[in-house]
Amino acid sequence: MSNQEFVVLGQDGPDGCCPGLLTAPLAEEQAVELAKVFKALGDPVRLRLLSMIASRAGGEVCVCDLTPAFDLSQPTISHHLKLLKQAGLIASERRGTWVYYRLLPEMTDRLAGILTRPAGQPLPEPAEAPS
Amino acid sequence: MSNQEFVVLGQDGPDGCCPGLLTAPLAEEQAVELAKVFKALGDPVRLRLLSMIASRAGGEVCVCDLTPAFDLSQPTISHHLKLLKQAGLIASERRGTWVYYRLLPEMTDRLAGILTRPAGQPLPEPAEAPS
Repeated sequence: MSNQEFVVLGQDGPDGCCPGLLTAPLAEEQAVELAKVFKALGDPVRLRLLSMIASRAGGEVCVCDLTPAFDLSQPTISHHLKLLKQAGLIASERRGTWVYYRLLPEMTDRLAGILTRPAGQPLPEPAEAPS
Repeated sequence: MSNQEFVVLGQDGPDGCCPGLLTAPLAEEQAVELAKVFKALGDPVRLRLLSMIASRAGGEVCVCDLTPAFDLSQPTISHHLKLLKQAGLIASERRGTWVYYRLLPEMTDRLAGILTRPAGQPLPEPAEAPS
């Protein structure tokens, strides 16, 4: 699945951004798509890979610089990177021998927006707090 | 695991908030803890439950109002709610016959912060863009 084919989440709001997980019940189809992205983030190796890619000065990282940080085989690292890519979180480009990865900040921006409470929304209080 | 025991993520920054997934490579231990929360979000039923709880006027929902929205058994719904609770995303309170659930917005706020780019950080550009 290319990045272009990935279903873009969170564009249903009045301003074209972030209908929000916290503002209205998610539609089933939207929940299925969104869960795939969170599932991709639900693994420590993938989170570390994503943070290494996202925080790299210059914006991209050679796979040859990622693998040595883990006690895992190259195919295992490549599999984790593939899942991050399928989730729309990173993009890759082969140049010569190596593949280079970079963050797709549109997706992390979108997740951040989805998880952000609408401005002015107070912390919910229980309807009947125990006295 | 009670909510009190849950390891609080993202409090290492200079302002006490959000060291960020995008600003520096995650430590292994931090990645393990954070992955548990994202894994809890990586399921469509749990995302729908969370959105139903978070968006409810009054701030809490009886489990008896959640179950009818799904073609799933009460024990299955309860299991999903338990995983959201263990991840620190919701809290529950039993009152009489029913259990009531409410969002713990501190955790969603924290995830939003972790996924937010530092102010002024440009979109990364590949070091060598193809011509």
